Amino acid sequence: MSADALAGLIAELPEGAVVTDPDILASYRQDRAFDPNAGTALAVVRPRSTADVQATLRWATANRIAVVPRGMGTGLSGGATALDGAIVLTTEKMRGITVDPVTRTAVAQPGLLNAEVKKAVAEHGLWYPPDPSSFEICSIGGNIATNAGGLCCVKYGVTTDYVLGLEVVLADGTAVRLGGPRLKDVAGLSLTKLFVGSEGTLGVITEVTLRLLPPQQVASTVVATFDSVEAAAQSVVTITGRMRPSMLEFMDSASINAVEDKLKMGLDRDAAAMMVAATDDRGATGIQDAEFMAEVFTKHGAKEVFSTSDPDEGEAFVAARRFCIPAVELKGSLLLEDVGVPLPALAELVSGVAKIAANHDLLISVIAHAGDGNTHPLIVYDPADAAMSERAHQAFGEIMDLAVGLGGTITGEHGVGRLKRPWLEGQIGPEAMELNRRIKAALDPGNILNPGAAF
Amino acid sequence: MSADALAGLIAELPEGAVVTDPDILASYRQDRAFDPNAGTALAVVRPRSTADVQATLRWATANRIAVVPRGMGTGLSGGATALDGAIVLTTEKMRGITVDPVTRTAVAQPGLLNAEVKKAVAEHGLWYPPDPSSFEICSIGGNIATNAGGLCCVKYGVTTDYVLGLEVVLADGTAVRLGGPRLKDVAGLSLTKLFVGSEGTLGVITEVTLRLLPPQQVASTVVATFDSVEAAAQSVVTITGRMRPSMLEFMDSASINAVEDKLKMGLDRDAAAMMVAATDDRGATGIQDAEFMAEVFTKHGAKEVFSTSDPDEGEAFVAARRFCIPAVELKGSLLLEDVGVPLPALAELVSGVAKIAANHDLLISVIAHAGDGNTHPLIVYDPADAAMSERAHQAFGEIMDLAVGLGGTITGEHGVGRLKRPWLEGQIGPEAMELNRRIKAALDPGNILNPGAAF
Ligand SMILES: Cc1cc2nc3c(=O)[nH]c(=O)nc-3n(C[C@H](O)[C@H](O)[C@H](O)COP(=O)(O)OP(=O)(O)OC[C@H]3O[C@@H](n4cnc5c(N)ncnc54)[C@H](O)[C@@H]3O)c2cc1C
Ligand SMILES: Cc1cc2nc3c(=O)[nH]c(=O)nc-3n(C[C@H](O)[C@H](O)[C@H](O)COP(=O)(O)OP(=O)(O)OC[C@H]3O[C@@H](n4cnc5c(N)ncnc54)[C@H](O)[C@@H]3O)c2cc1C
Repeated sequence: MSADALAGLIAELPEGAVVTDPDILASYRQDRAFDPNAGTALAVVRPRSTADVQATLRWATANRIAVVPRGMGTGLSGGATALDGAIVLTTEKMRGITVDPVTRTAVAQPGLLNAEVKKAVAEHGLWYPPDPSSFEICSIGGNIATNAGGLCCVKYGVTTDYVLGLEVVLADGTAVRLGGPRLKDVAGLSLTKLFVGSEGTLGVITEVTLRLLPPQQVASTVVATFDSVEAAAQSVVTITGRMRPSMLEFMDSASINAVEDKLKMGLDRDAAAMMVAATDDRGATGIQDAEFMAEVFTKHGAKEVFSTSDPDEGEAFVAARRFCIPAVELKGSLLLEDVGVPLPALAELVSGVAKIAANHDLLISVIAHAGDGNTHPLIVYDPADAAMSERAHQAFGEIMDLAVGLGGTITGEHGVGRLKRPWLEGQIGPEAMELNRRIKAALDPGNILNPGAAF
Repeated sequence: MSADALAGLIAELPEGAVVTDPDILASYRQDRAFDPNAGTALAVVRPRSTADVQATLRWATANRIAVVPRGMGTGLSGGATALDGAIVLTTEKMRGITVDPVTRTAVAQPGLLNAEVKKAVAEHGLWYPPDPSSFEICSIGGNIATNAGGLCCVKYGVTTDYVLGLEVVLADGTAVRLGGPRLKDVAGLSLTKLFVGSEGTLGVITEVTLRLLPPQQVASTVVATFDSVEAAAQSVVTITGRMRPSMLEFMDSASINAVEDKLKMGLDRDAAAMMVAATDDRGATGIQDAEFMAEVFTKHGAKEVFSTSDPDEGEAFVAARRFCIPAVELKGSLLLEDVGVPLPALAELVSGVAKIAANHDLLISVIAHAGDGNTHPLIVYDPADAAMSERAHQAFGEIMDLAVGLGGTITGEHGVGRLKRPWLEGQIGPEAMELNRRIKAALDPGNILNPGAAF
């Protein structure tokens, strides 16, 4: 790679779009997976338009230079980790949005934050449901590239359920429009859905068309504490078989205590598990459903059950749940897991993680989007302690093996990225792996786009 | 193709699986698109297991013989039309199902009817939402291959939203498992979603894992008649911006009259449009939402508004809506359209269709899943009348051009099949078309699977 080639790119893009300042390059090395093996890019490119993205990819293909697409770098699996000599293409300057309240759709550029999308559509009385805990700091393009989940998935589904159309730029620079503002459309293969969750390996998402809902109603919240994880997990199965909560979250003892250390809101430090549940059905129905959940918790031996239809009271508990990751992070650095299992295996997964923690002499706290069987074991370690780092990474792998052994997945919502790539084939099998490779080769024959991520 | 080759297949499959009786072959020539140019297959193959499907495809690849996958042949776009010299592979003998109420999932073979799936899961107190009007006669595998919709889509989404996993057999006979009973799983590309809606062109679906919901609540139904289609269409936009009806269906004057001719239930023959709406929210909320819809209809100038929370009364109107196609079919043979538009263009589409009908001197009745902007213009014609058939097919194409011109789609839920293939590129554009072809070539390089369908 010669400096001449980069000069060619600089000439093609608006002034300032190509950044080579070493300090800035350094700040784009890692995402929130904090991969110690991250490389350093040749340049960071900040396109403002689809045309800029096309020019960058045409140039990259001509010069055989890898491109790592990047949104806000909040990813937890190393999907946006820089590679030596590659271009990091960040969408942070692509932030437009237009909302059409009549068709209930929004068309956004990929760099807009999830929270900005929510705000822009709320101004038209509409709601964009997907709510990763990182919603204030992650981009809508990153959400689509990872098929992000969140707290409301249990009732409202994940990102893919709200993506009606995309514009993507392929490795060779071709821009392709897929889908559009039509609520139902089966013309041709489901390519929009194929690009959702493709982690930057098939193309760069340059525009998204989102489906919106009428506003969510105010929720009733039910909180319960348990002496045993099994009892809490059982209550999840009972509730979801009968009704559709709008939230059904789990915190273990370590996360309850970490949150209480900081927020001092009077959480039960002796509880083995705490559930934070909600229903957004209105009126008598909402009250009924909240009462039903409270009853189920009680029947499964909850120590304490607290219900409220006061939005601020409810929000305090949701905030406690959202605060788990930062709270546990105060104990040390985190390796953040994202394994999922079929619902009945939830308790077995949690107890298996406890065993792994004991074996490796580590603190591992487990929180979960319990209604979906999607858990986040948080492995606490000190990166400066080489032996401990080694044990933490060992545990990280063993947790994935445990989940796959229980019929689960290595990743429920964060993606495979670079961190989990070695485990992918073990879960999906060689045939599905081969299909992934064939599609990648068909769309990006030069392997320019995010090489080494996902597969 | 020699008889020897077929003997090889017969030897590999269980007795009776390969059928060459000419009468039977004739009965598998067409689907419900009644394509007059349908071919005649070399043989109909009725596998009972995934292994049988694998043997058939291995054999077909070795002998370069095309395979047309077929469920129950209720498709309306000619996707299961036989080709001369091809194998028609019907899944009608693959009908197993197991339901797991704890994970709220069902694993079914593809040949099971949609109605049989609904019944099997209802026995466990669960609900499989997708409800094409053909639910009593179409297969779940066909539903997945076409990403079928139905009346409840407006609130509950389409088939793809309920498919967690698939087993598919590729052209070369490899069986691949995609996804599984995990509610959230982002490991690898979204291949499950890619196969949904692939119309038999990428692989044969041999097993499906479905996501189930708790039972639907009893609905309140609101029926309204209008003097103008515009007013009815406006009410759809107003309602869907504020709440989520569980059904929002449209019938035009011709279909109202066709249904009334037969059912004599007292429908208003003078109305230009009739809306059949429902909400399945319970208790006070449901009553509120039903009242809201009734108010909106009234505000938009409805001639008459009728609300009922009596399930039998409500069901009578839903039955009237479901009876539209058979009722209009009593007037002549049908070319059944499936175009969709963004909601605000609904009235323009309906008036455009009326113009096309007048120009070609045809009766074209329009019914619609109005809440999704998905319409079914029903073109009535006499296949024995060559000139009229010509005019009907002309109108069929013009309606698609009209929809695409309004930012819509040539197919909202029936698929492209063989009938609509010439219009696909006009809608999705050459770049998306090329992407479709690249993926097809990557998965079925010999073009064995359903050649000539979709693209
Ligand atoms: C505190 C915290 C809480 C979190 N909570 C959740 C949660 O609840 N649920 C959840 O799902 N995730 C969660 N995450 C993970 C992360 O926020 C999500 O994965 C998010 O979707 C990433 O968005 P991003 O803009 O930061 O993308 P990045 O990290 O920049 O990139 C993520 C991946 O997407 C690709 N990519 C980004 N933009 C594009 C584009 N325009 N075109 C093509 N590829 C692109 C990248 O190459 C990379 O592979 C959390 C993270 C943190 C730090
Ligand atoms: C009266 C009537 C009403 C209808 N109403 C609706 C409606 O409301 N909504 C709607 O969406 N559709 C509707 N349809 C259309 C049709 O019923 C659907 O398209 C249905 O999904 C087709 O299922 P099938 O089993 O009959 O498939 P077929 O017609 O046999 O096949 C359809 C397509 O799927 C492929 N295919 C079938 N099985 C498999 C498999 N196992 N693996 C791979 N490919 C396969 C075929 O190759 C073909 O391309 C209606 C049809 C009729 C006759």
